[in-house]
Amino acid sequence: MAKNPKDPTLKSWVEVPEHSDFPIQNLPFGIFQTEYLEPGAGVAIGDYVLDLTYLHEGGFLDGLRLPQGIFNQSSLNDFIAQGKRITNAVRLRIMDLLQADNPLLRDNKTAVEMALIHRDEVEMLMPVKVGNYTDFYSSKEHATNVGTMFRDPENALLPNWKHLPVGYHGRASSIIPSGIPIHRPHGQTKPPEADKPVFGPSKRLDFELEMAFVTGRENPLGTPVPTTDAEDYIFGFVLFNDWSARDIQVWEYVPLGPFLAKNFASSISPWIVTLEALDSFRTEGPKQDSPVLPYLSFEGMHNFDIQLEVSIKPENSSETVVCRSNFRHMYWNVCQQLAHHTINGCNIQVGDMYASGTISGPTEDSYGSMLELAWKGTRPVTMNDGSKRVFIEDGDEVIMRGYAKKDGLRIGFGEVRTRVLPAVSLP
Amino acid sequence: MAKNPKDPTLKSWVEVPEHSDFPIQNLPFGIFQTEYLEPGAGVAIGDYVLDLTYLHEGGFLDGLRLPQGIFNQSSLNDFIAQGKRITNAVRLRIMDLLQADNPLLRDNKTAVEMALIHRDEVEMLMPVKVGNYTDFYSSKEHATNVGTMFRDPENALLPNWKHLPVGYHGRASSIIPSGIPIHRPHGQTKPPEADKPVFGPSKRLDFELEMAFVTGRENPLGTPVPTTDAEDYIFGFVLFNDWSARDIQVWEYVPLGPFLAKNFASSISPWIVTLEALDSFRTEGPKQDSPVLPYLSFEGMHNFDIQLEVSIKPENSSETVVCRSNFRHMYWNVCQQLAHHTINGCNIQVGDMYASGTISGPTEDSYGSMLELAWKGTRPVTMNDGSKRVFIEDGDEVIMRGYAKKDGLRIGFGEVRTRVLPAVSLP
Repeated sequence: MAKNPKDPTLKSWVEVPEHSDFPIQNLPFGIFQTEYLEPGAGVAIGDYVLDLTYLHEGGFLDGLRLPQGIFNQSSLNDFIAQGKRITNAVRLRIMDLLQADNPLLRDNKTAVEMALIHRDEVEMLMPVKVGNYTDFYSSKEHATNVGTMFRDPENALLPNWKHLPVGYHGRASSIIPSGIPIHRPHGQTKPPEADKPVFGPSKRLDFELEMAFVTGRENPLGTPVPTTDAEDYIFGFVLFNDWSARDIQVWEYVPLGPFLAKNFASSISPWIVTLEALDSFRTEGPKQDSPVLPYLSFEGMHNFDIQLEVSIKPENSSETVVCRSNFRHMYWNVCQQLAHHTINGCNIQVGDMYASGTISGPTEDSYGSMLELAWKGTRPVTMNDGSKRVFIEDGDEVIMRGYAKKDGLRIGFGEVRTRVLPAVSLP
Repeated sequence: MAKNPKDPTLKSWVEVPEHSDFPIQNLPFGIFQTEYLEPGAGVAIGDYVLDLTYLHEGGFLDGLRLPQGIFNQSSLNDFIAQGKRITNAVRLRIMDLLQADNPLLRDNKTAVEMALIHRDEVEMLMPVKVGNYTDFYSSKEHATNVGTMFRDPENALLPNWKHLPVGYHGRASSIIPSGIPIHRPHGQTKPPEADKPVFGPSKRLDFELEMAFVTGRENPLGTPVPTTDAEDYIFGFVLFNDWSARDIQVWEYVPLGPFLAKNFASSISPWIVTLEALDSFRTEGPKQDSPVLPYLSFEGMHNFDIQLEVSIKPENSSETVVCRSNFRHMYWNVCQQLAHHTINGCNIQVGDMYASGTISGPTEDSYGSMLELAWKGTRPVTMNDGSKRVFIEDGDEVIMRGYAKKDGLRIGFGEVRTRVLPAVSLP
């Protein structure tokens, strides 16, 4: 296979629609099931899912030293744990099998019928079992907006912000894939005019536009991962909606951070786009105008030019795009995040998720949350149907999409789409 | 088996030393390995470990509907997930097998030789694979001490503290069993006199005396667990040392909470003492003098009278007890903690750990951390060998022990013992 896997002119014998997120140069991994098939690993190509269990059992992946049953599982963890040497080889083999001029799979009608499943026939599940989930806070624009609204516009960034990538631990159990609806959470809040807290459904339910990387390699407890090695630990990325209940958060979060305001749900796009598929879209990050300690210094480009957008679709109405942002805006890059996370010896595990924090850009239409877009409720956002939003309402679907595009090549993430249902009835 | 499992006069044919934590009324579960045996489940009795894999395969647990291989695993998760109906039945069957007047196992010399392994011959491992770890902050004395030191003695408790059990998510991957040494963590700190942060090993390494409960039942995402049902979700308890680097914490924790100051390691005692074994030691908690919202109200006694102590053993010296506290001091009980954690629909998983927060009592010798015992470095604590401590030094072992005692019956946890090694060399 001498062809360049990043060549934008590569074509597959599987038809790929013009604006598809999933051309042959992408090949993201996920877990799917169908009416007939138990959960297993697949790869997206155009409007189809390629069944890796079938390919493996059919001998199409021979010679890659894959353990038996590695794809016939309800998570990608064991596959990812094989390491990049193996997972990259699998991706390149699949690329080879799908190339327009390769007859091996293309001309095997039975195999094609078995291996290629239309996306309308599959349900996408969680791609990994998430062992640990960390949320960073790495967009300067987002941190500045929040600091301006809740603290002091003159000193919006806290003193530590430019010295370290602020982060905190989140809840792994409630990370769910696109398509699973959530209920508006109940919680304790304290309205400014009240002298004691009240209980009820959150009145300030918000999304946060984020991306998350998934780790595929472990370091022993006690051994830091330097910025130079950090990308070896990163298998790929997903879109991440860090659902937030602002009214619960403001009452609970001092002094130990967000808890129930976040852990009722986080929604992700189901396909993990590999770091390798994004290689052509590397870009410089924002200039770090404050010097960092040596363990946070880095060389090369570790930001990625990925266009992001958020839509709200009110019930029985059409979508309105409320935010257009870009992953390139991250002040702290993924290598700095991972180096910081492990500098104290903290151990990374396979399947962990590390979210970026809300990705806000410099313009008012690029803010990654309703809190910022509607500026703490003071600037309602108008939907196509004329209705107004300051936060998310029952029945709304929130849809996040993301893709990188360059030289005619589009590498995308699909979407994470979540409907908000009314709060459950409590006994 | 008509005998009362809480009867303090019950005796086993296995000799149990007078002050043992593990009489026949306890029977905690853990995971052990030996030179010859792969990791598997065991129960502690006196100075021995009872090999559950052997008992199961030998037919001694027949009729209990246990899946094949349920104990021949490196964690208790699958066993615990069977539910209390099964796990309690297993514990009662083991109690029956171990009773002085039951000849079934006692008089089967081969079986006794195979099933009973002296504790000197076993290595205790993590009892569960921890999916999610939450740390609460539920001791009023601890929160008051911290607030007094770092904020305002007149308003030491923050406004939310008496309205909800404050908690935050911690790192599951770095929870380790007793006996595993830790390295002093490196990190970023900002000395008060400096105008920018510096890097190096933490100078304020501290323990926090806590207990943690392990959950054994799952609720669907979106479904709160009321206080009345919470104990059905609790399999048992362990001792928990929430290692903390105070100098890292104070620089990093605003606004999103502790992160690298905590996630380098947390150490636990390896035996999970069941909720049922602790039933005789229920007690009233401190009076909650501020009314709580209805979802946090409860009936009955959900505090436990468990005596706790912390020792420091400097290298080449003897132990000094630096703290004597009691789990009964918790202002927020475990039912309130779990009801709060799930009121927004957050889902609990099998094997999760929920730590109490530092358990400080009302007297100065009952404070559960060096931060409080040495009052922010101002009151050094003297060791038996004459040396002084304000925080933990390299070479020190920190040992936590806990037991409940009443009517001649002692139900204990053993210990969590951790040596602190110097910081690793960085490249």
